[in-house]
Amino acid sequence: HQTIPVGIINLGTSENKLCFDLLQKRLMRPDMLQIEPAFLQYPDWKGHSFLREEVAKFLSHYCCSPKPLKPKNVVVMNGCGSLFSALAATLCDPEDAILIPSPFYGVITEDVGLYSSVKLHHVPLYSQVPTGSDVRPFQLTVEKLENSLKEAKKEGLNIKALILLNPHNPLGEVYSSEEMISFLEFAKMHKLHVIVDEIYMLSVFNETDTFHSVLSLDGFPDPQRTHIMWGVSKDFAMAGMRVGMVYSENRDLVQALDQLGCFHGVPGPTQYQMAQLLRDRDWLNSEFLPENRRRLREAHSFMTEELKKQDIPFLHRSAGFFIWADLSKYLREKTFAEELSLWRCFLKHKVLLSCGQAFSCVSPGWFRIIFTDQLHKLKLGLSIAHFHFSSCILVVSPMEWDKM
Amino acid sequence: HQTIPVGIINLGTSENKLCFDLLQKRLMRPDMLQIEPAFLQYPDWKGHSFLREEVAKFLSHYCCSPKPLKPKNVVVMNGCGSLFSALAATLCDPEDAILIPSPFYGVITEDVGLYSSVKLHHVPLYSQVPTGSDVRPFQLTVEKLENSLKEAKKEGLNIKALILLNPHNPLGEVYSSEEMISFLEFAKMHKLHVIVDEIYMLSVFNETDTFHSVLSLDGFPDPQRTHIMWGVSKDFAMAGMRVGMVYSENRDLVQALDQLGCFHGVPGPTQYQMAQLLRDRDWLNSEFLPENRRRLREAHSFMTEELKKQDIPFLHRSAGFFIWADLSKYLREKTFAEELSLWRCFLKHKVLLSCGQAFSCVSPGWFRIIFTDQLHKLKLGLSIAHFHFSSCILVVSPMEWDKM
Repeated sequence: HQTIPVGIINLGTSENKLCFDLLQKRLMRPDMLQIEPAFLQYPDWKGHSFLREEVAKFLSHYCCSPKPLKPKNVVVMNGCGSLFSALAATLCDPEDAILIPSPFYGVITEDVGLYSSVKLHHVPLYSQVPTGSDVRPFQLTVEKLENSLKEAKKEGLNIKALILLNPHNPLGEVYSSEEMISFLEFAKMHKLHVIVDEIYMLSVFNETDTFHSVLSLDGFPDPQRTHIMWGVSKDFAMAGMRVGMVYSENRDLVQALDQLGCFHGVPGPTQYQMAQLLRDRDWLNSEFLPENRRRLREAHSFMTEELKKQDIPFLHRSAGFFIWADLSKYLREKTFAEELSLWRCFLKHKVLLSCGQAFSCVSPGWFRIIFTDQLHKLKLGLSIAHFHFSSCILVVSPMEWDKM
Repeated sequence: HQTIPVGIINLGTSENKLCFDLLQKRLMRPDMLQIEPAFLQYPDWKGHSFLREEVAKFLSHYCCSPKPLKPKNVVVMNGCGSLFSALAATLCDPEDAILIPSPFYGVITEDVGLYSSVKLHHVPLYSQVPTGSDVRPFQLTVEKLENSLKEAKKEGLNIKALILLNPHNPLGEVYSSEEMISFLEFAKMHKLHVIVDEIYMLSVFNETDTFHSVLSLDGFPDPQRTHIMWGVSKDFAMAGMRVGMVYSENRDLVQALDQLGCFHGVPGPTQYQMAQLLRDRDWLNSEFLPENRRRLREAHSFMTEELKKQDIPFLHRSAGFFIWADLSKYLREKTFAEELSLWRCFLKHKVLLSCGQAFSCVSPGWFRIIFTDQLHKLKLGLSIAHFHFSSCILVVSPMEWDKM
């Protein structure tokens, strides 16, 4: 055990740690240090107008919207968790529910539940697909949405909205425009609000998966009920900056979010810095975005090669910071109790992963593995995991792992 | 009307606009521009440990605590509104209620209500005092707390906590240690949590009102139920920075706030800047604090002289950014409808004030007048107000004002 470090190798938290050098250099340029009276005074709770203007321009450009997006439709808050909380509070009453395809980034359950007492109703997606079909594992379809909605209504749930993650966390799935339109049409038919979380939109690192923002569509089926989220946490690798935004044409929603905005304010100087960053197209297009994609591709490639060496099946996608991998061959039984034991075994040996049940996956054994860290850490994490796979997993019972 | 500007003279929002020059100079020093990996990553939701350490040291010193305060008891959030919201959510169930002496800074009603559905139950304080008694106008006493608590119980309300503002907004009242201990003893007897909001503690500008923090006491009557709030919005004149903090020895509370902290995060770089500011005792003690107090004193003095010239009665206190003034002589009838008309008349003429009913004052005609702005704005605001007092208020009915 002498090579195992004191800290935990965190392959569980979805952060991009590959670009700190680029970000530090940019964020420490003197243009970032600016203080104006408005920055120190109570702001417009939807965000300062200078920032909302930059967000509208930025999204118009990078989402390829057919018409310029309007600053008045932008609301800025301290992170997308805050936005989920505020959207749940405004779109739903307590105990109402929101449809969400599972597996999904599990923290959303707390985001909508802790303050707003809103529930999530899962639309289960399955790893198994009929032999010979062209259905993808975990593929979302309108039929599945329809079935889950019916089932929810049978249970007496009041479904108010649908959450779609694109690119999807943890699947890495990128929806085609046709798929997305079909989901939006489904929502329109049932008068559901749709929250489309596009927080990984600039983290698609191979051309095999081309991202199409909902904002690139020539009009939405139901614009008053379509709300798009983005933020700097993932695509700009700044989860600690706490800046998220929603784009919505619904004036009532914008006004309601304004009311809740006093709990989710972003500091004036931070708003200024984010505006500087969004408008710096030179840096974005020549430095940050291509280099970030290159590093994402490289780290992803390393991790997938390692998984192949171990004969671990995984979804081959090229978006996000994670690989959705099937470790079920290491379970003694295909149960969630066994999955939890495997998760705990990793943690005891200082490797943190996210297990499928934390994301409400319906098949046990799937794990989300973050690959966006320095190679030496990934290597160390994997070698620890591998050591335990080969030496103990097949001979030690779950209860004995817990004592390790 | 040619001298009236396009914008509104805002004597309604409690901001200190007197020290921007000092703050800009300090916040734009190169030591403020620092980016470290931890600042861009998900933080400890209670605040980075380096900031919580500085907060503990800062409060230990400026609150004159008998023993050093502990960093682990500090929770940092993006403003005290967020803290009120999170404290209400953790200390209460929906529809529970919190006692608060009125008049009080009215936004607290939304702070505890919007997300957490917690109600405030007012402890009414009165302007009138028995002739010859040594009772102060609007004085809070344990007897009044007892009566309100009884009344609340009769109404079937479940009272969980008491909010005390010290220095008080809008009264400018500063409680003596003896008074504060008696309120804390009352709360202990009834097992109520106490939230002591000391956000104006460094904005006491005359020695006539000496501030004693609850943290200066040699132990609280009920430490597990005593929670102290402070922030940089008022004392550091940075409402736009969105940084507030609570100090509590209650581990369960700290843990619960940690859970809600993901909605109220402060950007890493901002946390760093705040730590730099809190530890810069040279700047605080030699520059900012004495000069800020001097400017507060000067602006307060100007405003009180003006009020005296107009024979407007007011509470003479020397804490906070406001004067609580009795404009009831300008009401045709002593009603809240008339108070609202007077408020609207000011606003039509581009002067924003806060009226007593927004703070749940029980006697009509009281207004909170902010004095912490540049003299020329105060003068302009007052001259507009005065012009309308002398020329129209006594001859025009409220309904006619509205048409102006």
